[in-house]
This record gives sequence, structure tokens and C-alpha cells, in this order.
Amino acid sequence: MKNQEIKNFLAKLQELDDFAIIGHINPDGDTIGSALALAFMLESLGKKVELWNLDPVPELYHFLPGVQRFSCPQAGDWQGKNLIFVDCSEPKRCGDEILPYYRQASTLFNIDHHISNKLFADFNLVVPERAASGEIIYELVKMSGVPLSREIATCLYVTIVTDTGSFRFPNTTASTFRIAAELKEAGADTETINHQIYEEIPPETLAVLGYAFAHFQYSPQRKVCWLVLDKQTLTRLQARDEHLEGIVNYAKAQKGVEVGILLREAEPDLVKVSFRSKKAVDVNALAQIFGGGGHQRAAGCRYRGPLTEAEQKIIEQAILITEGAGA
Amino acid sequence: MKNQEIKNFLAKLQELDDFAIIGHINPDGDTIGSALALAFMLESLGKKVELWNLDPVPELYHFLPGVQRFSCPQAGDWQGKNLIFVDCSEPKRCGDEILPYYRQASTLFNIDHHISNKLFADFNLVVPERAASGEIIYELVKMSGVPLSREIATCLYVTIVTDTGSFRFPNTTASTFRIAAELKEAGADTETINHQIYEEIPPETLAVLGYAFAHFQYSPQRKVCWLVLDKQTLTRLQARDEHLEGIVNYAKAQKGVEVGILLREAEPDLVKVSFRSKKAVDVNALAQIFGGGGHQRAAGCRYRGPLTEAEQKIIEQAILITEGAGA
Repeated sequence: MKNQEIKNFLAKLQELDDFAIIGHINPDGDTIGSALALAFMLESLGKKVELWNLDPVPELYHFLPGVQRFSCPQAGDWQGKNLIFVDCSEPKRCGDEILPYYRQASTLFNIDHHISNKLFADFNLVVPERAASGEIIYELVKMSGVPLSREIATCLYVTIVTDTGSFRFPNTTASTFRIAAELKEAGADTETINHQIYEEIPPETLAVLGYAFAHFQYSPQRKVCWLVLDKQTLTRLQARDEHLEGIVNYAKAQKGVEVGILLREAEPDLVKVSFRSKKAVDVNALAQIFGGGGHQRAAGCRYRGPLTEAEQKIIEQAILITEGAGA
Repeated sequence: MKNQEIKNFLAKLQELDDFAIIGHINPDGDTIGSALALAFMLESLGKKVELWNLDPVPELYHFLPGVQRFSCPQAGDWQGKNLIFVDCSEPKRCGDEILPYYRQASTLFNIDHHISNKLFADFNLVVPERAASGEIIYELVKMSGVPLSREIATCLYVTIVTDTGSFRFPNTTASTFRIAAELKEAGADTETINHQIYEEIPPETLAVLGYAFAHFQYSPQRKVCWLVLDKQTLTRLQARDEHLEGIVNYAKAQKGVEVGILLREAEPDLVKVSFRSKKAVDVNALAQIFGGGGHQRAAGCRYRGPLTEAEQKIIEQAILITEGAGA
């Protein structure tokens, strides 16, 4: 990321006023924390800012300062706003519902770290080598001269912790650690953050994990591990999407396993499938066979058809790719 | 930690030769990584170094460079050695078996970060504000002028990741992050480290966790969560000590829970008990009632008596402390 690029982007923000910041649906720590930190920065620069998201903020993040300010934009809200997308590779990541409206905004800004970013805005600040969009907001704050307040530091720390799996994922760089050091010194409330993210496991998550650990299935060489969750089981366990996030990682994170897969029945004849891999297997290629996609180590697809059929076809293919080639 | 203190300690090490480095029993990432990094440093300074531990290094750490050099010292090995304790609050942390021998060493050194350290050596470098003993070794390496090699960086990174729970525990400081940044730049093999620690869950651990999730018990207000593991169940699940580490944290890490407790039958009439707490409850005080101890948020005790009696008495007390006082 060149300093000049940040400087130009910041100069454009400083010229304008009346901003709306929008993040992606199913909001995560990076999109929420980035939006909040950016709002605090712009307000310190004297700007008017609204915070938008089509989905509600998960309870997990309700401790963040300013989080109650997120609202869902209505049809008349877009006209004349300067719209900043954060952590969105393209506008539809904010929900298909925004597609008829977002072009009514005066100027479009785009701050993101996804390599797949479509550079769709008037001004794009896209830095794929950054672990989180929050790292890019951090650079903007530093460049702006706005003090790194405790609030901003807390919001930015959340973006990094959640997008790096607490500094474990390979996207974690020396810069990530240096930023974390500065945020810590600026008073980021790391204790509350870690508590909320890691120490408040809901009973439904525990129930689902318990079920998973007892029902994981394995390929002949134990390199593929998968779990099937039918609608009936999900209902019995009272499990919603947010309770299922850890399962596919546990499927993959076992000794000897190369690929972890979760198949869950979203509706009759609609199966949502998540894939994770360690090193050897490209699950993006695997997901593409079934009309999905993603990254080499994390991908997904939607299978139209009965759950048993989805399981049979997808697992057969996964085993072929993982064990058939002598992986 | 004052620079002068490190300088003096280092000067004394530089004067001498023929070292043995010893770590504590049930060795963890900090004692192993610290010992290895220190050995590499001393060897770069031209010294002869042996690495000792009374227990074998857990498989998890077998990827570390030099790890095969650890040996168990024999009766005749101590005489004339300059002995460096790492990550040990007192000599018996290395095993009661060393107590008749360790004073045969010429000079005793002590590098540690435990606040309970007994300052038992001729030269003590004890810095409780450091997250890991490895952080202190890092300062020694920097001061010594020995280049921060990829090997040393990898060993030191392990000490920090394991002792901070991947930067999640409250001992993590801005310094911790700055050191992590430097280790990353020096080529620490963070990918292998994270893989070994987080992505190679053994089947026994999964079985034990699955059992735990189905058998956790709760106090009336759900502020105390505990699990009882009898000998028969442990045998059936083929679970050894190393497979049980996560359980008590999961007991505590649930929504609304303040205290997590694991009671396991080690032998007939010997129950090993682990306590963890979030904030409100001092489990050190709780453990002390039963002749144990530890820290405010993590403690343990050994109960002599049948498992059912241990459960009844300890849980009664835990509930009294946690819910009786209206906590």
C-alpha cells in the first residue's frame, strides 16, 4: 500500500461531507469494526456520517462503541449521500436489495482487502495483502492525524482478531502484529473483545459441536471428514447459522484430515455446503464442480436436491480429489 | 525489565561454559521453546550446551529444530555443569528426582516469568510482567548480538503463542505483539506452529470433548459448569492427560458461566481437580479450601477420597462461593 494512494483517498474523503458507510450482509467483526472506526474518524474530521447494514449486528458485537447506530437504509435515503463500502468485494455483498439504489449516491468509495474486489467505486482503496479491512482503516486514521482513541482502537482490534482467527491464519503479517501493538497501547479493550468472542459460547453452539463430534464421518484413509445436518436435527438442537461456524473447522482441524466438509439442509432440496482444506487440496476447484467457489482453502456451494443425494455426490468427489490422486 | 539487569545476566553467561538447560516437567511450549532458543544462542557464542528434561517432549512439539536433543539427566551428569533453569518457579518444578542432585552444579541460573518464582539461583532473571519466559530469552538474544535466526525465531514464537493462548490471554502486551512482529520477520515458521498446535486434534481429544459437551453439569443459576470423568470413561475414550486440556476451558467459556471445573479420577481415591474462572470468582481461594492453589483465574487441587464424595463437596463449595454470595 503506497502512502500516496492513502493520501489521495483521504484527501477526497476530506473534501466531501454527508457520508453513509455500508458493510456486507451477515456482518462480521471486520465489516462492523471497520465501519465504526471509519465513522469515528470522519466525525473527528467534522463530517456527518450514517452507518448502514441490511442485517442486524450479531449480539456478539453489541459491546462495541456506537454499534446501536447501524440502521437499514430505506428507499429515500441514498440520494445525495457519499457512500463508502467497507469489506465488500462488490456492491451486491451488501444485499441484492441495494442494487436498484446504490447508484443514487453522489460518490462511491470502496475500502477492502479481498483480492476478488471488483474496483467498482469512484475511489477504490483495495489492499489484498492486508489481513483485515480494519488494517487499511488504521492507515487512514494515522494519515488523517485523528488521534487513535480508545474507541477507534477497540473497533480496529476486533477487525484484526476476527479476520486472523486471533493471529493464527496465514494472512497475519508482521504489520498485523505492529498494528495490534499500537492498538493495545491506545487502550483497545482486548479483555472484553476476547471475552465476547471466545468466552461466551452459547448453549446451542455447544449442543451442535457435541452432536458433530459424535457424528463426524470419515473417508477410508481418514483424509476427508464430513458432517451431515438435516433440518430435523438443526431444529431439535435449536441451531441457527451463527451456531454452525466452528463445525467445518473442527472437521478439518483433526490429525490426518486434509478436507473438512459440512452439509446442511437449509430447505427441502437445498443443501448448503462448506469446504475447508489444510494444504494439499484446492477446495475452490471442488466447490466449482457443484456451481460454487471461494478460495483454495475455504469454499462453499449450494446443492439443489435431496440431502442424501448431495452427500453421496459431493463426498464421492471430495474423496476422489483427496485420496484418489494419492494426496 | 531493566537493560542493565539483562546485561549483567548475559555477561555472567558469557564468562562461563559447559551449560545444561533444564525445563519443568509436563513440558509446555514455553519451557521447550525457551530452552531451545537459549541453547542456539549460547552455541552461537561458542558454548557447549546440553538440554535436559525429566519428561519426554510432547509429540506436538516434535517439529521444533533441535528438539531431539532433550535428554533425561543421570546421577553423574550434574557435577561441574552450569545449570540454567527456564520457566521454573523453583527447582522441584523440574521433578522431585532432581532435588538430591541439582546443587552439584557449579553455578545456578534462573530465567522465568512466574510471579511465584523463588529466586533460588545464583543468578536470577525473573520478569513477571512478561507473557512468556521466551520473551525474556528474546531480550537476551537481542542483547547478545547473536542474529535472530529462523530457528531461534520459531522456538520463541512457540513460547509466546502457547503461553498467551494465541494472543488472547490478558498477559498479552504491546511488547508481546512487537516481539511477535520481529519473530515473524526473522522467518519464524508460524504456519507449521499454528498447524501443529491448532490443526492436528487427535481423535482422543475429539472423543473426550464430545463426551464433555454431552455431560456437562450446571448449578441452579448456571454459573458453575463441571464435568466428572471417572477412570472407566477415561479408559473407554483412551484419553490421556494431554487430551483433557481443553475441557475445563470449555466448561468456563460458556455464556453465563463464571466457574468451570473438571474432576477426574486419577487413581481410586485420588481425584485431580482443575478450576477456571472468568472474573467474579477467585478459584485460588476455592482450591485452597481443598489443599490446592494456583492463580485467581486458574487453580487446581488433589482430593483424596472417592470421586462422588469429591464432586459433592467441591461443587457444593463452588456453588456457595459463586452463587451463594449473589455473584
